Amino acid sequence: MKLSHFLMPTLKEVPSEADTRAHSLMLRAGLIRRLTAGVHSFLPLGWRVMKNIERIIREEQNRFDCQEINMPVLNPRELWEESNRWTDFGDVLFRLKDRRGRDLCLGPTHEEVITDLARSFITSYRELPQTWYQIQTKFRDEARPRAGVIRGRQFTMMDAYSFDYSQEGLDKSYENQRIIYERIYNRCGLEYSLVGASSGLMGGTGSQEFMQLTPDGEDTVITCEKCGYAANSEVAQSRLNQVSEVVENPHEPEDVHTPDKKTIAAVSEFLGVRPMDLMKSVLVMADDKPVLALIRGDLEVNETKLMTAIGAEYRAMEPHEIVEMAGADAGFIGPIGWKTKPWIIVDESIVEGASYISGANKNDYHIKNIVPGRDFSMKTVKDIRVVKDGEGCPNCDSKIKISRAVELGHIFKLGTKYSKAMGAKYTDSEGADNPLIMGCYGIGLERIMSGAVDTHADDFGIIWPATIAPFDFIIISLMQTESSIMETAKNIYEKLKGLGKDVLWDNREYNPGVKFKDADLIGIPIHLVIGKNFLKDGLVEIKIRKTGERRKIKPKVAIEELMKIHHELINELNDSADQVK
Amino acid sequence: MKLSHFLMPTLKEVPSEADTRAHSLMLRAGLIRRLTAGVHSFLPLGWRVMKNIERIIREEQNRFDCQEINMPVLNPRELWEESNRWTDFGDVLFRLKDRRGRDLCLGPTHEEVITDLARSFITSYRELPQTWYQIQTKFRDEARPRAGVIRGRQFTMMDAYSFDYSQEGLDKSYENQRIIYERIYNRCGLEYSLVGASSGLMGGTGSQEFMQLTPDGEDTVITCEKCGYAANSEVAQSRLNQVSEVVENPHEPEDVHTPDKKTIAAVSEFLGVRPMDLMKSVLVMADDKPVLALIRGDLEVNETKLMTAIGAEYRAMEPHEIVEMAGADAGFIGPIGWKTKPWIIVDESIVEGASYISGANKNDYHIKNIVPGRDFSMKTVKDIRVVKDGEGCPNCDSKIKISRAVELGHIFKLGTKYSKAMGAKYTDSEGADNPLIMGCYGIGLERIMSGAVDTHADDFGIIWPATIAPFDFIIISLMQTESSIMETAKNIYEKLKGLGKDVLWDNREYNPGVKFKDADLIGIPIHLVIGKNFLKDGLVEIKIRKTGERRKIKPKVAIEELMKIHHELINELNDSADQVK
Repeated sequence: MKLSHFLMPTLKEVPSEADTRAHSLMLRAGLIRRLTAGVHSFLPLGWRVMKNIERIIREEQNRFDCQEINMPVLNPRELWEESNRWTDFGDVLFRLKDRRGRDLCLGPTHEEVITDLARSFITSYRELPQTWYQIQTKFRDEARPRAGVIRGRQFTMMDAYSFDYSQEGLDKSYENQRIIYERIYNRCGLEYSLVGASSGLMGGTGSQEFMQLTPDGEDTVITCEKCGYAANSEVAQSRLNQVSEVVENPHEPEDVHTPDKKTIAAVSEFLGVRPMDLMKSVLVMADDKPVLALIRGDLEVNETKLMTAIGAEYRAMEPHEIVEMAGADAGFIGPIGWKTKPWIIVDESIVEGASYISGANKNDYHIKNIVPGRDFSMKTVKDIRVVKDGEGCPNCDSKIKISRAVELGHIFKLGTKYSKAMGAKYTDSEGADNPLIMGCYGIGLERIMSGAVDTHADDFGIIWPATIAPFDFIIISLMQTESSIMETAKNIYEKLKGLGKDVLWDNREYNPGVKFKDADLIGIPIHLVIGKNFLKDGLVEIKIRKTGERRKIKPKVAIEELMKIHHELINELNDSADQVK
Repeated sequence: MKLSHFLMPTLKEVPSEADTRAHSLMLRAGLIRRLTAGVHSFLPLGWRVMKNIERIIREEQNRFDCQEINMPVLNPRELWEESNRWTDFGDVLFRLKDRRGRDLCLGPTHEEVITDLARSFITSYRELPQTWYQIQTKFRDEARPRAGVIRGRQFTMMDAYSFDYSQEGLDKSYENQRIIYERIYNRCGLEYSLVGASSGLMGGTGSQEFMQLTPDGEDTVITCEKCGYAANSEVAQSRLNQVSEVVENPHEPEDVHTPDKKTIAAVSEFLGVRPMDLMKSVLVMADDKPVLALIRGDLEVNETKLMTAIGAEYRAMEPHEIVEMAGADAGFIGPIGWKTKPWIIVDESIVEGASYISGANKNDYHIKNIVPGRDFSMKTVKDIRVVKDGEGCPNCDSKIKISRAVELGHIFKLGTKYSKAMGAKYTDSEGADNPLIMGCYGIGLERIMSGAVDTHADDFGIIWPATIAPFDFIIISLMQTESSIMETAKNIYEKLKGLGKDVLWDNREYNPGVKFKDADLIGIPIHLVIGKNFLKDGLVEIKIRKTGERRKIKPKVAIEELMKIHHELINELNDSADQVK
């Protein structure tokens, strides 16, 4: 491809919309272009990278005889009602009506459709195991799209689904996907950690995430350097440094006047007690039902843990809704004195038989001597707490560490959640019907792309891993009025293309500085410069973007040398995939 | 891939939902599965074909240095209002609101987004010409989805867009796409005609369609065998065999009592006149404005021609709307006597100065002696007529022929419609700003797939062109308890895979008849049977699906022979592409 007629709008300045370094580089190198919030076009360079990632994913899935299919974006409401996720997905699900008024949604994931295929087509244990995957566009109406393509409202996902007739079979299919994922990441030049994760709205019996540790991450990962514990903060546990004590012969609950004291800090100061002697109450609405989350006053509620405890998406309550329901403002609510009791979910930090202070559901009043178990039900106790730096590792006596991370992929053991709900069965060797045992596995392609940019960049721009680079080589011809330079450039350009390589030829009438800067910014692995040295000594110059190494050689050996260097760069990455166990 | 663990749900019976032969074969061979009206999943065999078509399209576009990009499905309303197509697209456009209530649509085509990219990034004539394309999922809420994937509400399209600074440049870009399209069809084994077409809602200065003639087509193509005229019935012209005559000194309009005579046939019989002496009135609603289409009584209105005349999608009026507006039922409306006059579009069959009978806008009454030009305005006269078999060719004195056809692709000279509306300019060599001159070009991938099935099939099933076949070879092992058979099958299977070929191994424990039938039905180009002959004479049998030819050979030369046959099948198709001029 000749750059003079190529869509590559590079930028010198950091665009104002960029909120991470990778995002900034992707905009500056002309890879993507924002159309509306969380929705991007891919320009030629960016799309070439996406296609390379897609190819690697396909090769690795096919290596394990997983079968590629394609499921529709438009999904009928009826199917999503079978799993109850038409409702559970909340505002994240894009819903629309067709011209006949029928309800549709845009698939945010495809458990429903795949389970429908499985119940239609899988009959016997003899056909199992099978894994089906697709590489397809997904839609999620995220509340806070961010970091360019990292959290988009439309994005590309490889989602795979496995079907087995035994738990051991699922374990094997899941393990295969773990290997496939690691091979993919290694080939794409990514570094990652495998951590325990929340299954969120997917459900199932357990899941793990592949995490790329980076300061620009939106996720939080908890690790213990001593015992190797690693988990997403959405499920991570920890030991608290201080635990509430059980009180012998506690007093009865008693109103305390706390005029205008609406925060934990204000109440604890006013009453002269520690924040941990209070209970914090958070009132939310899930599927039109109120839920009261109770947690110790010095701690915070983790949104995903709470969603997992509820089992569905929820939303914050409006101030007027809180007043209507509790009879008091948000600062004065608590577990006692409800006309209509909400579902109370109690965090594990609240100790049965200890004594706490909480809101009285009456403005300007709190209640002291509230004893969990005596004064309100401890029927639902869950870990809904934000884990904090410096707390204890749940497995050993060490302290945990908190890091920022980006999720690169997520693998789930679904078990029979969908197959039971939707009646997807197989016949076993004795002729009995059983629900299929399922797994599901997802990789965001844009996250691989962005992750590679985040990992491989310097002050001058992107340094693409050779496996996913938009072009293998860039030829930079300078002093273009010299016909010998243009002939040599053309000759090498055509020969490399003839060998099946992707070559960009910067034939623009720009000065050398601009051309060098662009070549560095867009991160093509191998540069070939034909300019002053060629006229002087008949030499062309190879530059390896990754190392900065330069070699001056004769044009007649250039093809051989370029191919050799490229081969080495590719092999290095592919070899690292072969190390995966 | 081993068939025992492969998703290939073939069917013996013709499924009731099938409405064409190709549709039936695609369902029977397990290529697709309907999810909801006009929305299908692709199963592994079907998706492999789609991926092959995609690869061929990409290779041919890239051969001409066209650049692949990717534009979003989610489009903001504001962009579509710039071209006025937020309204013009009518019910075909899927519209939705996001969680903040902002209006979005699902892209049915991408002129708006591409023009937005062009106005952002193209600056100078020096960067032109450029052609950008994508292969992406499109959404159109069709009123009547049909023929499986032929008219789907969600489908895969290759859409290309060219940008030039001169009409000659556009002609060249358009001509390049014509060559690319023909090369693609030839490589995919399709037969096609290039015909004049309606530009419909795209606008622009002209367009052509690639049509596959087939009795199962939903389009109608008009051709003249004498002079070579060829056009889609949506734009085709013809000479009428009889023309209305101008009347000297016509009478004044006069009411005629026509009790309960609501159709052309009933009125003409009742009054003893020819149907061509009447005018037919069709009242429709376009963007909330009423339009009255007037045509001679013996002729029919062509919906697309009417849409082109109006310049926007329209809908039929409800009976109660007609009564409210015209003061009469549909059977009694006409061009005279409106309280609020609709926009009247008059078909070319209506002759100024002739005398007609039409509805009186009063139930049970018609009016005679209506003279166009005297009694109602002939300001908008258009060809909105359905062309009929046996009418005269518009170019010569021959008769036209009508055939059914499926549209395979459509290429448009857009000119400056979008660049002017949206301000997409380039600077010319004298420093002046001009609107970009655009073309757009679309191919439906599912239509290529379905077209190949329609063209290449026999009573036993599909006969895939080798270039797009889901697998290159199928190995059919029989008598599978014989270890020598399974070893030979495995050996050949592995060797072919090692050579980069796609191989399906039917290792199922089924009887030979079932395995042969499935192999024929799914249409893999080359079959290799290892069974009785192998045990008897040590021979394996090659069958070429297309010709039915069988060859018995020794296993040790099987690989060479299989590769040779495959090479020939592929070359034959690729060579036909090289004939394109």
